[in-house]
Amino acid sequence: MIPASITGKAARVLGLLALLASSTASASEADLILPDFRQVTFLGGALTGDKLLMVGIAICVVGLIFGFLQYSALRKLPVHKAMLEISELIYQTCQTYLVTQGKLILILEVLIGAVMVVYFGFLRHLEPLKVIAILVASLMGIAGSYCVAWFGIRVNTFANSRTSFASLRGKPYPTYAIPLQAGISIGMVLVSTELMLMLLILLFIPADYAGSVFIGFAIGESLGASVLRIAGGIFTKIADIGSDLMKIVFRIKEDDARNPGVIADCAGDNAGDSVGPSADGFETYGVTSVALITFILLAVPVQYQAQLLVWIFMMSSAMVLASLGSYFINGLIQGGMYKNADQMNFEKPLTVLVWLTSGVSVVVTFLVSYLLIPDLAGDSSLWLRLSAIVTCGTLAGAIIPEAIKVFTSTESRHVREVVTASREGGASLNVISGLVAGNFSGYWMGIIVMVLMGSAYYFSLGIPETLMIAPAVFAFGLVAFGFLSMAPVTIAVDSYGPVTDNAQSVYELSLIENIPNVKEEIQKDFGFAPDFDKGKDYLEQNDGAGNTFKATSKPVLIGTAVVGATTMIFSIIVLLVGIVQGPNGLPMLNPANTDKLSLLHAPFLLGLIAGGAIVYWFSGASMQAVSTGAYRAVEFIKANIRLEGVEKASVEDSKRVVAICTQYAQKGMINIFLGVFCSTLAFACFESFFFVGYLISIAIFGLYQALFMANAGGAWDNAKKLVEVELKAKGSELHAATVVGDTVGDPFKDTSSVALNPVIKFTTLFGLLAVELAVELKSAGQGAITTGIALVLFLVSFVFVYRSFYGMRIETPMSALTGESKPETKPA
Amino acid sequence: MIPASITGKAARVLGLLALLASSTASASEADLILPDFRQVTFLGGALTGDKLLMVGIAICVVGLIFGFLQYSALRKLPVHKAMLEISELIYQTCQTYLVTQGKLILILEVLIGAVMVVYFGFLRHLEPLKVIAILVASLMGIAGSYCVAWFGIRVNTFANSRTSFASLRGKPYPTYAIPLQAGISIGMVLVSTELMLMLLILLFIPADYAGSVFIGFAIGESLGASVLRIAGGIFTKIADIGSDLMKIVFRIKEDDARNPGVIADCAGDNAGDSVGPSADGFETYGVTSVALITFILLAVPVQYQAQLLVWIFMMSSAMVLASLGSYFINGLIQGGMYKNADQMNFEKPLTVLVWLTSGVSVVVTFLVSYLLIPDLAGDSSLWLRLSAIVTCGTLAGAIIPEAIKVFTSTESRHVREVVTASREGGASLNVISGLVAGNFSGYWMGIIVMVLMGSAYYFSLGIPETLMIAPAVFAFGLVAFGFLSMAPVTIAVDSYGPVTDNAQSVYELSLIENIPNVKEEIQKDFGFAPDFDKGKDYLEQNDGAGNTFKATSKPVLIGTAVVGATTMIFSIIVLLVGIVQGPNGLPMLNPANTDKLSLLHAPFLLGLIAGGAIVYWFSGASMQAVSTGAYRAVEFIKANIRLEGVEKASVEDSKRVVAICTQYAQKGMINIFLGVFCSTLAFACFESFFFVGYLISIAIFGLYQALFMANAGGAWDNAKKLVEVELKAKGSELHAATVVGDTVGDPFKDTSSVALNPVIKFTTLFGLLAVELAVELKSAGQGAITTGIALVLFLVSFVFVYRSFYGMRIETPMSALTGESKPETKPA
Repeated sequence: MIPASITGKAARVLGLLALLASSTASASEADLILPDFRQVTFLGGALTGDKLLMVGIAICVVGLIFGFLQYSALRKLPVHKAMLEISELIYQTCQTYLVTQGKLILILEVLIGAVMVVYFGFLRHLEPLKVIAILVASLMGIAGSYCVAWFGIRVNTFANSRTSFASLRGKPYPTYAIPLQAGISIGMVLVSTELMLMLLILLFIPADYAGSVFIGFAIGESLGASVLRIAGGIFTKIADIGSDLMKIVFRIKEDDARNPGVIADCAGDNAGDSVGPSADGFETYGVTSVALITFILLAVPVQYQAQLLVWIFMMSSAMVLASLGSYFINGLIQGGMYKNADQMNFEKPLTVLVWLTSGVSVVVTFLVSYLLIPDLAGDSSLWLRLSAIVTCGTLAGAIIPEAIKVFTSTESRHVREVVTASREGGASLNVISGLVAGNFSGYWMGIIVMVLMGSAYYFSLGIPETLMIAPAVFAFGLVAFGFLSMAPVTIAVDSYGPVTDNAQSVYELSLIENIPNVKEEIQKDFGFAPDFDKGKDYLEQNDGAGNTFKATSKPVLIGTAVVGATTMIFSIIVLLVGIVQGPNGLPMLNPANTDKLSLLHAPFLLGLIAGGAIVYWFSGASMQAVSTGAYRAVEFIKANIRLEGVEKASVEDSKRVVAICTQYAQKGMINIFLGVFCSTLAFACFESFFFVGYLISIAIFGLYQALFMANAGGAWDNAKKLVEVELKAKGSELHAATVVGDTVGDPFKDTSSVALNPVIKFTTLFGLLAVELAVELKSAGQGAITTGIALVLFLVSFVFVYRSFYGMRIETPMSALTGESKPETKPA
Repeated sequence: MIPASITGKAARVLGLLALLASSTASASEADLILPDFRQVTFLGGALTGDKLLMVGIAICVVGLIFGFLQYSALRKLPVHKAMLEISELIYQTCQTYLVTQGKLILILEVLIGAVMVVYFGFLRHLEPLKVIAILVASLMGIAGSYCVAWFGIRVNTFANSRTSFASLRGKPYPTYAIPLQAGISIGMVLVSTELMLMLLILLFIPADYAGSVFIGFAIGESLGASVLRIAGGIFTKIADIGSDLMKIVFRIKEDDARNPGVIADCAGDNAGDSVGPSADGFETYGVTSVALITFILLAVPVQYQAQLLVWIFMMSSAMVLASLGSYFINGLIQGGMYKNADQMNFEKPLTVLVWLTSGVSVVVTFLVSYLLIPDLAGDSSLWLRLSAIVTCGTLAGAIIPEAIKVFTSTESRHVREVVTASREGGASLNVISGLVAGNFSGYWMGIIVMVLMGSAYYFSLGIPETLMIAPAVFAFGLVAFGFLSMAPVTIAVDSYGPVTDNAQSVYELSLIENIPNVKEEIQKDFGFAPDFDKGKDYLEQNDGAGNTFKATSKPVLIGTAVVGATTMIFSIIVLLVGIVQGPNGLPMLNPANTDKLSLLHAPFLLGLIAGGAIVYWFSGASMQAVSTGAYRAVEFIKANIRLEGVEKASVEDSKRVVAICTQYAQKGMINIFLGVFCSTLAFACFESFFFVGYLISIAIFGLYQALFMANAGGAWDNAKKLVEVELKAKGSELHAATVVGDTVGDPFKDTSSVALNPVIKFTTLFGLLAVELAVELKSAGQGAITTGIALVLFLVSFVFVYRSFYGMRIETPMSALTGESKPETKPA
């Protein structure tokens, strides 16, 4: 039973943000604060909640130490100078890129911070210290996303040259083991950092500050992740398309050192495929947890809150160990099988790792639940029920990657169809066939997500009303949590891709085969005779495995956006609808207002329509930035590439290409981000239930759009790979056709698709502030002003939408198009 | 006030299908029947409702006579034998196609009919006569769609050769006037037929039969339209891509008579761009009206029903005259300006016609409303309010086409960007840039639809509670009605495209310039000296105008699907939720059940997710059918085309291409249709509110997907046109790049996009039966059976989804791909 002092206070008291304000508003009001973890005991009274959480922190420390040990191990691996130079050049380019992005994030943080100060400081009259705490927390969130991303590229740029060099030893195993080691290092550091920060907030921040600090922290993370995902996605694909198209135009190979676009491409692989996912993973993990924390504080009676929170965080901590253990076990198995093998299927050990971790995680879920909540709320079956719900998510983490392979693996019939279609139909049918794969994947993945959520809903039907309001919402949150339970491994296999991709590039760019007496030198310095042909072969095959696992881990992050969205949106709903005492004495959402969440409330329906608009615009705007940037890059490269008499492109030309990529990534990102920012504020001010409809709509539209784009892109990518590796038809017409699809797929899978997840989360979290701001203004009798603000911001959002196309156009006069294909306007 | 005898009967009485059953269930129950039109008077008592409706019938007769007069006028226009032969060949090919489709529709009708018989006959125990009436009505709906489509191709295949021939006279005017004449003839016949059938049902079918007859009629229409749209869309684009790709491969021109794919292409233009839109327009007009009728019978007190129904149908009738009048006025204006001109912009007079009709229609709306309902429900401002709502829709009919031009007109910056991007980026950036145009159009069109619906909602806020339940729903229905108010003209400008497209083809295929002494012959027989160069030029320019208006009228039909969906879904909602007496004594939806329409009812949320899945699958499946068919067509044409020593392809080869198109259109359509059919039944049986979420979701997802695809396709199409006409760069690399985009856009705009509208409508209407069937079974204690049926049908739907890709693959062995690009398997 929720104490009457809480249930009686209805909406205002339970509203999440009301909670932040209540301490100043009136000391006599019951605060919705974090429960006291010292008051609850676990394991038959052996440990109190706070002690258990300390154990969690200890586990995080173990995770961090492990991560950093891997880091230094990677650094010490042997590598030839020629390769090291390249990887350090890539790292430096990435550094420059990250510094630029860092500045931009801080500028945008000023904007977000201003909204927070206006809202918390002026409208809610919070004490200055609290406002500062919120701002600091948001900076901490940004710093988290940013540092993890930086750590990621540092590890990756160690690993890429070491992998490349190790491939020369004539055995495939190290080519697999090193990228995975880099990946697990990033995964462990990422999850341990995130988890530790949250545990520290839970344990050491005053209970009435913790709520605000969590929200600030989550918004900061989302901001960082959105920027790094969007800009990284644009950067990498400008460079990638720029380089790829040269393959057709000049019939040069991938990573030809004479192509000034290659360094940008390598940096882009890290900016897009490492920085982006790291920041995104960090944010997703954090935001999903914050959504669950918020739900528990809002919807669960106070006497059960500590139990549920400790349960969730101890599961998270145990999962860190589960991932670590699985990595070791898998290492033993694979080492035993492949250490001395001459050939190996690079995808297989990764698949084994994923399934192994998934299995171990499920066992851990049930075990931890049984130990910690064996008779929650006096019900001895509830731990089973809740574990089953989490398992729906954990299984998703293994099932979704398998399902994705049906559309994107080189063995899949969809990918083969793309190749077949290209044969008679050239680029035309290649493109159509890839779109077909994407569309079909949208269907199947949607059905899978629906069935998993449906199962979780089914299990939630047995959760007693006395334990919480809206058990289904909690169930969806737990599914999202389950998606991420094996996060360290998910991140590890995702990070595998950029390392293998880079390793191949480092090999080519080092021109190691051309170094005089290199064989003797390596024999002398490193003690083995290099086998260049085998090495190249391993690297190429391994790149395919990297592609596949990059493709399979995306939907896991994307999936959390929609599955977790409901839980996040729940806070807004509670705030808007209010809570009253039901006929049975239990708290319930105020039925007088819930009809506004219904289809028959026209603004809600209009909100459902509005969400689609934003998702389509976002897709278009991000692709336009890639298109215009790639055009400029191609134009520049075409004009400046020298194929005769040089071994490699000049550093200056390479830097110009990097500059072009950065320029358009920045421009595109700013328009997109400010468009999203203004629309969110405008819609929130317009009508609260319209906004709820909008949020749910961007989550669902975002899910499908992201899956469609990611998998179409994956199919095209591997269709090209198939033509190159299996058919050995590089340079043929067929190959040219598949390159077209691959380049179309580039912004699909690595720009638009992947950025949707953080954008949806940012909108939802920031929307929580925005909608509360609007409600506050309206209740202060400023309804007209709020509508005015909505209208003005809506019009301002049009400006950025307009600029995201018309301000990003390729400015070449039409008359120039008739002439020969040469740049009319020399790039400045 | 609704009489207590009705309000007290709650859900069962008011449920739409309950209405159908009530006459047999118990004679003492109040039936929800059509009101008695003889009891209401209009125009100050001058005319009773039934008399006014008779006036409506008279107007329809005028419309029909006008349409058939145009038909015979077109037939009598002079034409050279060589051209006539081609157009008759096209007509015959279309005939064969239509007969095949007709058979298929009847087979599917057996399936739908079976469901109707099971439901109405066995579950609801309707008297046999009533069941037969429903079946007959559905057949009538099919016949309507089918006959109108047939009329359309007959008129078009008269007009195409006449246009072609008239172009030789050296003046552009007839090249514009003849296709428009054909279009208006189709538009008038279509709308008049539809309207007359509905008026006849209203007036002459017994009041207690009319409801069932309307539903049966609408389902029949939807079935016919869905089949003709899907199959036509696949057919036309297989042929189109097949022919187009030859342009690149062999560097031959469009419509080269030696290409055996050209006849199929011409037939396809009619099958896809004439048959499809005619059937679709017929269905849309009918279904939107039925939705409004149903709403009025369900949500409006009986004493106002007759007034509102007469008002709506008299507006429709007056709109027929408005379109007719506008056509004449426009004819006078344009004739005066261009009759003797040597050059004309073909798009301008069409734009004038659209805006003129729109303006006249708005005036007519206000006039009719003022005359018929000056003080509806005792409120003398209500006519203004309702007229304003309708006007939101009417304006959409003019604004949407203008907005579409921003993305698809050859003058638009989006289209120019597509061309520019192709310059350095080839097919890759061409495709990306077109996708960008589509995505941006999705945003803007979504916002426009939302704003129009929002305005209608705003106006509806003043509709008194005493007049109806859920005024917003009525408002959305009226907006959809407004969209269609100028339907004859919308259909006319839509039909302009296939005629102009065909006219160009007829010219080329007739090889008229090669006929010995043709100039003298024409001078002798027709009295003028032909100017071939000018003729070709006019035809080419006119084709661009045709493209633009084909592109602009699509979204109007698509828009009605989502705008009208709410109104249609309302019937289901009333059925599920039930109606009770509110605290103020007025009827209201039962608040005890409306929370199931809320976001917090998990099945509703899951339904919102399910809709996306189906829309993505549909897009993929329809494109796959085109892809595999086009592959076969290309393979065949490549193997059989003869470029040396022949003037034209053999009839036999041409027929083979037609056969390939038909074969894949059938196969694809059957999988798609049965997939939709089974999913709909399964979802309806699964959970009723899940199903409501699903329906609203397919409407909204469908809207965006359709707009995105239609406009991306339009942009690619005109980018190619721009390169051909403005840059005169046929045969260049740039041209080849734009052909790739154009072919990708083919299934986008003419297959997947356009079929979504009838499929959404069919699902919603058929869902009305399906959900009632499930509710009936459940209330009979057969909940387990219903769930079982849901599960089985869901699994069966998987079979068709599976087959729609795996059963439609191009069956070429992978090993064959490495060799030269020649067909390994001779087509049987």
